[in-house]
Amino acid sequence: MVDDTLLSMLLEAENEFISGEEISRRLSISRTAVWKKINKLRSLGYEFEAISHKGYRIIVSPDFLDPLTLTNAIHTTVMGSKVEVIKTTFSTQEDARRRAEQGAAEGTLIIAEEQTGGKGRLGRKWFSPYGKGIWMSLILRPQQPLKFASQLTLLTGVAVCRAIRQVTGLEVGIKWPNDILIQKRKICGILLESAIEDNVMRYCIAGIGISVNVDDNDYPDELKTIATSLKIESGSTVNRTLLIAAVMEEFETLYQIYQQKGFRPIINLWEALSLNLNEEVIVHSHQGIQEGIAVGLDSSGALLVDMGMGEIKPVISGDVKLK
Amino acid sequence: MVDDTLLSMLLEAENEFISGEEISRRLSISRTAVWKKINKLRSLGYEFEAISHKGYRIIVSPDFLDPLTLTNAIHTTVMGSKVEVIKTTFSTQEDARRRAEQGAAEGTLIIAEEQTGGKGRLGRKWFSPYGKGIWMSLILRPQQPLKFASQLTLLTGVAVCRAIRQVTGLEVGIKWPNDILIQKRKICGILLESAIEDNVMRYCIAGIGISVNVDDNDYPDELKTIATSLKIESGSTVNRTLLIAAVMEEFETLYQIYQQKGFRPIINLWEALSLNLNEEVIVHSHQGIQEGIAVGLDSSGALLVDMGMGEIKPVISGDVKLK
Repeated sequence: MVDDTLLSMLLEAENEFISGEEISRRLSISRTAVWKKINKLRSLGYEFEAISHKGYRIIVSPDFLDPLTLTNAIHTTVMGSKVEVIKTTFSTQEDARRRAEQGAAEGTLIIAEEQTGGKGRLGRKWFSPYGKGIWMSLILRPQQPLKFASQLTLLTGVAVCRAIRQVTGLEVGIKWPNDILIQKRKICGILLESAIEDNVMRYCIAGIGISVNVDDNDYPDELKTIATSLKIESGSTVNRTLLIAAVMEEFETLYQIYQQKGFRPIINLWEALSLNLNEEVIVHSHQGIQEGIAVGLDSSGALLVDMGMGEIKPVISGDVKLK
Repeated sequence: MVDDTLLSMLLEAENEFISGEEISRRLSISRTAVWKKINKLRSLGYEFEAISHKGYRIIVSPDFLDPLTLTNAIHTTVMGSKVEVIKTTFSTQEDARRRAEQGAAEGTLIIAEEQTGGKGRLGRKWFSPYGKGIWMSLILRPQQPLKFASQLTLLTGVAVCRAIRQVTGLEVGIKWPNDILIQKRKICGILLESAIEDNVMRYCIAGIGISVNVDDNDYPDELKTIATSLKIESGSTVNRTLLIAAVMEEFETLYQIYQQKGFRPIINLWEALSLNLNEEVIVHSHQGIQEGIAVGLDSSGALLVDMGMGEIKPVISGDVKLK
């Protein structure tokens, strides 16, 4: 593992140099020992600028997810304030659920480099190859009536969409309820699972899967035409640590707005990012298949679809296809 | 394990005799082998009436829970149509959740002779000693909007209360939302846990704990004054198999009524069994402690409490104490 004390010191300094002398003094170790520790970090993929009389600063962090690097990068109070990184797991949703049952606090974030049984909505699988994406689950403990569960789904979509736009500049948008697309291809899936006791929400796990640096030839054939990645679309590797931090920060901001001012401001932000609004949609639900034009969200988070003849129908669950 | 084929034949015959000759013919075994199998069942606690030229019939089934005996005793289409009995487990709620995630059908029933980590509402523990009670979890897959989750809690309470009355004759009643009491002492607890994806209920686990044959000196000191059992109250051992069957049958009947006619008939049955109605109650919820008089249920399942001055307040969650 990484030597936390030295790395933490260097990460906290951000772009400032720290001299070998200062490191030696603060860690109570010899200059030779400092040098050895710096080399240890180099072997893990960190790169440093080293200037005589000024000292060291980190210029490249390796492309693996490290709890300490993440914690330093995430500037929030609650969301992502505790981060756990797992190399390979079946499903971060399941891991987060276990932590939540054990009493983990709101904002606890579980991230994996790889999921072998990644879950999507409606029992679908989620492709989660090693080191290529952000496969993570955030524990929430919202104090709100049950009927607002779907509002949190939409809020999460807005937070992730805004974070991706901010970090990559890509014009990603939201397909109701919670897919994030670019050029009609999926770049991110969101799954909110809640545990209810009687009629009280005990906790909610927001699962977020972002295909960050997945390459075209990583995808199995059946996904090639419907999925893409931030790297494929932008042409360059995207720093996952920065993107995770941006998602946590956006989420925390929106969650505070939501708790203080209700769902209306979230609807406005959602509609601004929506790919469905004023577009023809095909609604697949357990009531069958119907066509109409999406006209907005209602206060519960249902998609309002104009079915023609002035009939506006709220779609509560199901799938929506862009025509 | 029990020899299923012979036991099944004898159980299905109910009070009719089956001759050794018929058993021998139907199982294609010798009369001596029949005799050995009967003795094997005797060693497990079954008692038979054996009459020359008539044959055998079961007069006493042993006091352990056996899937085959249960399946024969439960006369339903869905509820309890598949039964799993575990000797000792941490929590049947957790076991049922795993089964539900694996796709177990509605009506699957998980029963344990003992729970080492039995759960009650609000994170409380549930005392579940070996062989002394009914500690079980029923998998439900209701097709209904999320907001009706608490209606199922109340329905379960009515089903269990009616089954206990029917089997034991004891005048048990319901304390809102879902405790079953006799003489102000608790005899049964109910816990409904639901798994929600976005705003759709994937499944619901109805946990039912009935203190059937628990003796006074089984209870730890802190429970002695607040808990009792069917055996303590009735003065005799209650057959758990019959009671489980009665609960499944009542549940299935009420669940059908609920799906066909809505919640109103369930409200009426609940109110008839309620210990709170027209009584002073103290409401403990996250809004604090308040007093009032319970006047009924609203259509969502909230307890309506008259706080005085004509103010009727719906209590959605929390604890209610009888004054």
